[in-house]
Amino acid sequence: MKIAIAQLNYLIGDFDGNVNKIIKYAEEAQSAGADIVIFGELATCGYPPRDFLEFDDFIKQAEASIERLKKASQNIAIVVGSPSVNPVIEGKDLFNSAYFIADGEIKHIQNKALLPTYDVFDEYRYFEPASDFKCLEYKGKKIALTICEDIWNIGNENPLYTISPLDILIKESPDFIINVSASPFSYSHAEERIEVLKANVDRYNIPLFYSNNVGAQTELIFDGGSVAMSPNGTIHREMPYFKEALEIFDLEEVIEGEKHSEQPKDDILEIHDAIICGIKDYFSKLGFTKAILGLSGGIDSAVTAVLAQRALGKENVRVLLMPSQFSSDHSVNDAKQLAENLGIQYDIIKIESIYKSFLGQLDTHFEGLPFNVTEENIQARVRGTLLMAFSNKFGNILLNTSNKSEMAVGYGTLYGDLAGGISVLGDVYKTEVFALANYINKDKEVIPTNTITKPPSAELRPNQKDSDSLPDYDILDKILFEYIENRKGPNEIIEMGYDQALVKRILRLVNINEFKRYQTAPVLRVSSKAFGMGRRLPIVGKYLS
Amino acid sequence: MKIAIAQLNYLIGDFDGNVNKIIKYAEEAQSAGADIVIFGELATCGYPPRDFLEFDDFIKQAEASIERLKKASQNIAIVVGSPSVNPVIEGKDLFNSAYFIADGEIKHIQNKALLPTYDVFDEYRYFEPASDFKCLEYKGKKIALTICEDIWNIGNENPLYTISPLDILIKESPDFIINVSASPFSYSHAEERIEVLKANVDRYNIPLFYSNNVGAQTELIFDGGSVAMSPNGTIHREMPYFKEALEIFDLEEVIEGEKHSEQPKDDILEIHDAIICGIKDYFSKLGFTKAILGLSGGIDSAVTAVLAQRALGKENVRVLLMPSQFSSDHSVNDAKQLAENLGIQYDIIKIESIYKSFLGQLDTHFEGLPFNVTEENIQARVRGTLLMAFSNKFGNILLNTSNKSEMAVGYGTLYGDLAGGISVLGDVYKTEVFALANYINKDKEVIPTNTITKPPSAELRPNQKDSDSLPDYDILDKILFEYIENRKGPNEIIEMGYDQALVKRILRLVNINEFKRYQTAPVLRVSSKAFGMGRRLPIVGKYLS
Repeated sequence: MKIAIAQLNYLIGDFDGNVNKIIKYAEEAQSAGADIVIFGELATCGYPPRDFLEFDDFIKQAEASIERLKKASQNIAIVVGSPSVNPVIEGKDLFNSAYFIADGEIKHIQNKALLPTYDVFDEYRYFEPASDFKCLEYKGKKIALTICEDIWNIGNENPLYTISPLDILIKESPDFIINVSASPFSYSHAEERIEVLKANVDRYNIPLFYSNNVGAQTELIFDGGSVAMSPNGTIHREMPYFKEALEIFDLEEVIEGEKHSEQPKDDILEIHDAIICGIKDYFSKLGFTKAILGLSGGIDSAVTAVLAQRALGKENVRVLLMPSQFSSDHSVNDAKQLAENLGIQYDIIKIESIYKSFLGQLDTHFEGLPFNVTEENIQARVRGTLLMAFSNKFGNILLNTSNKSEMAVGYGTLYGDLAGGISVLGDVYKTEVFALANYINKDKEVIPTNTITKPPSAELRPNQKDSDSLPDYDILDKILFEYIENRKGPNEIIEMGYDQALVKRILRLVNINEFKRYQTAPVLRVSSKAFGMGRRLPIVGKYLS
Repeated sequence: MKIAIAQLNYLIGDFDGNVNKIIKYAEEAQSAGADIVIFGELATCGYPPRDFLEFDDFIKQAEASIERLKKASQNIAIVVGSPSVNPVIEGKDLFNSAYFIADGEIKHIQNKALLPTYDVFDEYRYFEPASDFKCLEYKGKKIALTICEDIWNIGNENPLYTISPLDILIKESPDFIINVSASPFSYSHAEERIEVLKANVDRYNIPLFYSNNVGAQTELIFDGGSVAMSPNGTIHREMPYFKEALEIFDLEEVIEGEKHSEQPKDDILEIHDAIICGIKDYFSKLGFTKAILGLSGGIDSAVTAVLAQRALGKENVRVLLMPSQFSSDHSVNDAKQLAENLGIQYDIIKIESIYKSFLGQLDTHFEGLPFNVTEENIQARVRGTLLMAFSNKFGNILLNTSNKSEMAVGYGTLYGDLAGGISVLGDVYKTEVFALANYINKDKEVIPTNTITKPPSAELRPNQKDSDSLPDYDILDKILFEYIENRKGPNEIIEMGYDQALVKRILRLVNINEFKRYQTAPVLRVSSKAFGMGRRLPIVGKYLS
């Protein structure tokens, strides 16, 4: 038996486009001799469809998609995820289902039992968990069909669910497991995924065919990396990351367990490629081609510009250099040099006259009050307004350049440098931004060395440095990581050896700045805990604040 | 037996403050002769604590709170909601629990079974559903203890859950039901709540004591309205809305079912009071007192200013009038008149010179291109920047004045009039804003009549009217309501008799403007479906767009 895995990039709600793509790949798999072709989770409607699932009209289109796929299944079995209606009146109205379609009919539907409802996942918001589990038979083979999280309750010290569907399915002695997934990227996810697949194969001793979606859906980036795993735990094949692909496997060969093929794994490389995928899909799926951003001469906007140029092409990235009287000459020169290195259009607009026209209207109201963060913010907002004017006039989407460290502690101006349609580095700590810059420069100087080596500064008042108001990023990022990614409390972090006052100050800054993060753009998620939909905290509260 | 209900306003994460308040009210109830006093759901930590629940440190503080309450329970039984740790390794780590504490010890813990995970609720994100149900005995009475949603699966045509805990508890023949709730307000919620309570009492024929939280938590407003209901379905007492209160009931009197006392119900009155509660708590819980907003002379900012003045006091509301060359004289006069009527400070800042300084820097870049939405947005962003400058300089929180109709179709400028810390009218359709204005003016002219009667305009270009680009609000709001609140699809709405092209245009506008709503302030929720945490849609997609 030959089994194909198709890891594809779907567009949420574009049923026609998604089904056309599924049929095209099914035909290709069939031509290459496959008996079964496996697509991803909720492939008909795209994942995550979120509250679109609450519209009957949306569900009817998903049902119509399955009808189309029945017709396409005359000569190949199609395994595909799609929502289905719960026939029982009690409970949620929908299931998250995997369909096995062959010979023009639905041979089997398996509903998902384990519904991830944590971090970026909201599946119990929409779906009733399955309580029935049955294998299906096709061409003399018995198949255990599972959906994503259904195989993730194996091999954990603290399992999230009280059952594991395969513990039930395995009693029917299936020949192999199929898993249809939509499992979003983080830089540690590929390793975790392989560990989980191994834990399943170790426990059940049968081959596993895992198909993951690929491509970005607003903030979530799906990396593909689909896997055919042998019963002995060998990775028969790990498919590429961030690319659509179709590959065909011989079941007997997978069972033998003698082949091994894995993708290279490196955090910074993966983050680099993930963000490029994220930018590319954000633009293409919205029907936009052109980006704009402000280049300050600093490292965040420099790395953002490089990633945007690599995602969209140099002809589609435009930058503004907007020096003030507080900007150093080298900032403008570094920014110019970068734009020239990237071959992207740049314009210089001095903001001093606009800034002064604001001060002129405000001086009677602010009389006698000293220069403070108010005036710093006005500069940032003048720049934001100029960038948005270009965005509006020419149809360029503004890229936000703030990094995760700044967003964490609120070091940025709402409606100023925190503006933008998508946050490129909002899930990348400052120390990781440096690592990205060095990775970008590994073969030649793309980002001017001075941009990387000079002390970070917002340049909103004379001789300002980030280190005036923030601790060293090396320490800051470590404390933030313990609090944000590891969800450690103040005492636990202090016990690790960090200064008590510093820890309390940083945790307080994170909490009181929730209001700023609430109003910033969606953040391309590359870590296990990104700001945005995966981290939900009250603005109003009194905890560590 | 005497049973007290205490409906209180908790602050999320403020364990000390919340427990102090609980103890104070417990003492008061005890002095008044109560045997039992019932507080709300997750009262120790405040509801909704959201991802703070993922911090061990937070849970330890909740456990310490229960220890404190044990000491306070020597002479009165305290019923209180608090998170508790799931001792079983499989499943989520926490339960959403109701504690029955008396004689210095925990007499009983009942965990919540039905975990709302829809709209603004995320409870399965954190909690394992209960599978054990037991009544408790106290002073010779058998009590069925339930938590909020546990009683909401009764009396529905399409029940969300497959079980109802009281169907199990009732087998023990309890004397009465206690329900500890945190059930947020919407203008139809009080009626729904009473229907649900009635459906329970009809089914089980025993009295029900329902305690709800009160006060606002960022966007969610809890209205109180706690109820003692007689077994015959009579509302023995419905406690006030939006106010902390302690009331004591005689069990025998409630059983008799001869008393009836209910709060007046009127949608616009409730919305008015809810928003005032929302503003008041947003400020006081954040430790702020002063608001600022822009007064345009239009109805949205006028209604916002009135509600702010009523919530915060006239000395704490400041407004800016920021006319441009496109502003009509009457706009400035209407705004001035309103500020004078309200007794609030106003300043006039003309924006033309700042606007022109922007155009001056942009003219070489925009040469030959016509005036369009770009220049309109610059005006709105100049105003936003001026308001934020006052906010930064004087510590006033900026109030967003956009209404739900505008936010739905994206009729507003990101970082301009869409700026602000909290959205006051973002869940109030334009037609409801008019109703609010008329309600405000019912006794005397607070809002100048001209503000209410003139055709709505953004005044960003000569002779602009909302009706140039939007359908009449009467029609627009009805179509939006069908789509947003009722989740009807385009065909269902067209079949109701609305113009096909108009329906498609409006639904498309709603969907393509998700990116703007993503970046706006939290919206005070007054309807059953508000923008924000209760409505989660992808920015990138292709559905009705």
